[in-house]
Amino acid sequence: MLSDIEIAQKANLAPIEQIAQKLGLFQEDVEPYGKYKAKVSLPESTSNDMGKLILVTSINPTPAGEGKTTVSIGLADGLNQIHKKAVLALREPSLGPVMGLKGGATGGGYSQVLPMEDINLHFTGDIHAITAANNALSALIDNHIHQGNELEIDPQQIIWKRSLDINDRALRHTVVGLGNKAQGVPHEEGFDISVASEIMAILCLANDLADLKTRLAKIVIGYTYQNKPVTVHDLQVEGALALLLKEAIKPNLVQTMEQTPAFIHGGPFANIAHGCNSVAATKTALQLGDYTVTEAGFGADLGAEKFLDIKVPSLDKAPDAIVMVATIRALKMHGGLTTEQLANEDLSALKKGFANLKKHINNMQNYGLPVVVAINEFALDQENELLYLQELCQEISVTAVLSSAWENGGPGATELASTVVSTIEKNEANYKRLYQNQLPLEDKIKEVAQKIYGASDVVFEKKAKKQLKDFKTFGWDLLPICIAKTQYSLSDDASLLGVPQNFTLNVKEIQPKMGAGFLVVLTGNILTMPGLPKRPAALDMDVDDSGRVSGLF
Amino acid sequence: MLSDIEIAQKANLAPIEQIAQKLGLFQEDVEPYGKYKAKVSLPESTSNDMGKLILVTSINPTPAGEGKTTVSIGLADGLNQIHKKAVLALREPSLGPVMGLKGGATGGGYSQVLPMEDINLHFTGDIHAITAANNALSALIDNHIHQGNELEIDPQQIIWKRSLDINDRALRHTVVGLGNKAQGVPHEEGFDISVASEIMAILCLANDLADLKTRLAKIVIGYTYQNKPVTVHDLQVEGALALLLKEAIKPNLVQTMEQTPAFIHGGPFANIAHGCNSVAATKTALQLGDYTVTEAGFGADLGAEKFLDIKVPSLDKAPDAIVMVATIRALKMHGGLTTEQLANEDLSALKKGFANLKKHINNMQNYGLPVVVAINEFALDQENELLYLQELCQEISVTAVLSSAWENGGPGATELASTVVSTIEKNEANYKRLYQNQLPLEDKIKEVAQKIYGASDVVFEKKAKKQLKDFKTFGWDLLPICIAKTQYSLSDDASLLGVPQNFTLNVKEIQPKMGAGFLVVLTGNILTMPGLPKRPAALDMDVDDSGRVSGLF
Repeated sequence: MLSDIEIAQKANLAPIEQIAQKLGLFQEDVEPYGKYKAKVSLPESTSNDMGKLILVTSINPTPAGEGKTTVSIGLADGLNQIHKKAVLALREPSLGPVMGLKGGATGGGYSQVLPMEDINLHFTGDIHAITAANNALSALIDNHIHQGNELEIDPQQIIWKRSLDINDRALRHTVVGLGNKAQGVPHEEGFDISVASEIMAILCLANDLADLKTRLAKIVIGYTYQNKPVTVHDLQVEGALALLLKEAIKPNLVQTMEQTPAFIHGGPFANIAHGCNSVAATKTALQLGDYTVTEAGFGADLGAEKFLDIKVPSLDKAPDAIVMVATIRALKMHGGLTTEQLANEDLSALKKGFANLKKHINNMQNYGLPVVVAINEFALDQENELLYLQELCQEISVTAVLSSAWENGGPGATELASTVVSTIEKNEANYKRLYQNQLPLEDKIKEVAQKIYGASDVVFEKKAKKQLKDFKTFGWDLLPICIAKTQYSLSDDASLLGVPQNFTLNVKEIQPKMGAGFLVVLTGNILTMPGLPKRPAALDMDVDDSGRVSGLF
Repeated sequence: MLSDIEIAQKANLAPIEQIAQKLGLFQEDVEPYGKYKAKVSLPESTSNDMGKLILVTSINPTPAGEGKTTVSIGLADGLNQIHKKAVLALREPSLGPVMGLKGGATGGGYSQVLPMEDINLHFTGDIHAITAANNALSALIDNHIHQGNELEIDPQQIIWKRSLDINDRALRHTVVGLGNKAQGVPHEEGFDISVASEIMAILCLANDLADLKTRLAKIVIGYTYQNKPVTVHDLQVEGALALLLKEAIKPNLVQTMEQTPAFIHGGPFANIAHGCNSVAATKTALQLGDYTVTEAGFGADLGAEKFLDIKVPSLDKAPDAIVMVATIRALKMHGGLTTEQLANEDLSALKKGFANLKKHINNMQNYGLPVVVAINEFALDQENELLYLQELCQEISVTAVLSSAWENGGPGATELASTVVSTIEKNEANYKRLYQNQLPLEDKIKEVAQKIYGASDVVFEKKAKKQLKDFKTFGWDLLPICIAKTQYSLSDDASLLGVPQNFTLNVKEIQPKMGAGFLVVLTGNILTMPGLPKRPAALDMDVDDSGRVSGLF
């Protein structure tokens, strides 16, 4: 069997100018970055002529794998197979996981976006620009303190962290500014992976350069000795940060293996941030294509909820249909099986695990959105199981369609594509938000916890209780919320699969992300700087004398 | 008066494809990065057909400014004005100083390389790729130790430092790996600015991808508990690091304000590294142009010495002429004046300061290379002083030509260009290295100290003495040396201007840069992570809603 990169290297790519032309882009709006990548100008803010939006999400992820990105790419290729003008809008991968675990984030098998080496490595430099802006801000904060500290920033209350786009556990807890007076003011510090930087979330929610700069100015970097918030605007550096991001904010255009246009742009975490590609890219795709396929991070409880409650208001366009990805294997794990038990047919485990899928379907329907289930086919799936899953879906009046896009590319997803199109053509989408921003902060958290996660109640720990008060004083309580929770369970306990009952959601801390425009609600120890595994993928990577890449999966 | 960026924004740029075509590059060797930048394929290693090489260097820099880059750009434009096919090969700027002090590194006035905003900001991402590779290596080292430490690396003897492309004094001395067992192994750590990373030096000396990978494999990252050196090859990650650098190693093509082709690629420090642009870029320029103008860092004692003893062997081509840049103002400072005293005519100070220029001229002549002096004109220069300086040069049989390229662009440097061409046409260059690599390490250091700096002797401090022995044991003593010394004086004492006499050079430490292929000889506290000033340039930078940049000088 060929590896992903071997399949990718056999693909027939069109010059990126040709892809741009197919989309109807003007030449002056396209800046090629090499032969197969381009930056395109920011979308017109005035255009109301938008295509249909398809949001791909999934059940809670399990070690069995769901393949949301592969299904998204396959669906877009499938739509093109049935002669619809489809465009992809996806996240761009972080170097950290690429070097750490086996794999990039560009799909797999015969459903990939290309050139996968470039997209998985530095791509057009967006994440590097974010890292640079993030760390320029840190240097400017520490320099301000070192040079007299006019703003009276308390070094022990700096909440802005440095960042690097790498998995590096040794940078989680550090002390900087050691040495002597000339080396700055010592304080504790931590590095996040760059995609966890608030600047990534900002870049993904900003509609244009002006919006970007306004958001950057609002970032709260810490507090004074008098516990007053200090912002980027107080430091007068929003202009410099925006300058560092002026190219990064432009959407990147690439293509799938079947030459379907794909915008790959931005990639914030789906727990401490909202987990989907940029508003700029999605809007561009919507303006150029008849069908835009986009993806939300993790399961629908995290990714889709945030897409719908955080991104949609900024995008000003809701999905016309939801595609919910599930695999037989993963559902069986939600039904109680271990990875070792997955090979055998087990309809009762499947039925039990189906509850997880059903809960996510109901959640999406409560937003007023129609759902199609995509069953991502795996080699060992049993015919009986597939039929039974389709039956279970039918019982709740949802169509479940098999996708073999990983093995067959677009032709493996034409049935899925047709089903999605006919669903959209019924015009049933009637999006309504889960909560209004004016609701009290506690109530907004309860709304998500109870309605989406199925929690019986929410418990606020001491620190969070104080913050509920403080944030109200600062006038920060009217923002949408972004709950950081384990992706593996509907609850805040990663070990509870299926549909956990009678649990409380425990809120430890609330973090202001005033630039991104949401409050992060922490319900556990969310790792914002991953570590490398015992044998990092880096050990297998190579490039030969002619520039040919190996060891990227 | 217009600022540099205002002048730059009025320039008439040709599409980069057109510049590439003018050079005779094939379309398949050019990858555009936007409309006015491109990466070009690595040069053919087989081609022997090279043009003439002009190395621009200078007297020891003073606060009065010398303008080496401006003269280099002006000279290339001047050569084109007199119908010679000239190409530039220059260093690319680091973001650190751009955000910190007023100014980028793309020339000034009417002698600039463009697009200056892009070149000064992220450009084509080379330095970001170096940062990523540098820090991936750090993460892989710390992960190796954390995951069992098979190689028995002593955490207290890791000499590989992390890096960021920013001026950030708080990162000079840090402790990483704090927290608990899951957060890695605690150890002291420091961050260098990325351009001080050995990877930058490697990228600039490698002839191709194979050479790059071989050099990366040889990097010594630290020592075992038994004091044995540990290399990147021991960690098996040279392939991954080379992969991260596969695009960064390709030269970047841009243009001057007068559409002269310019390769801007690589930019290592000129003290702890060799201080000139990449071998790949210089070689490409030499293969495509009749005259290649390139620049060495700092004064000729540091930059040109390293160009001639470190870069030339890798490039396999020596300069055909040296252009030595001086200003009346700077020479008067070498003659004892303060910045406040520069406005008035002072021939005796000029004569006294001329000694510095003369010493550098003699040094270059001792390499067997002909020298032309370029007097970079400043508004307040006195006619008498200019004539007197030319006279002083004439007395030692060297032509000194005025350049007004800053004010007038290429037309202000045509006389300089003609003089350089006629000097080259006399065919007097007969390059010989200062020392052979086989010389004992102490003797190589003494050779540079005595012949180039004019030191009476070299004193090795205790640590350096031990290293002289150790390095011999490790077989490292046969490499060329790279002396890190203050750039402001021929001696290792920054306060001694002019031509210091009867001083000793004090060697504190020797650092192995086995990938770069040289030994760094430290003679003082060389800052490899700058700090930001009281009022960083970042505070004045901005980008408006349409993407127009301001505050870059």
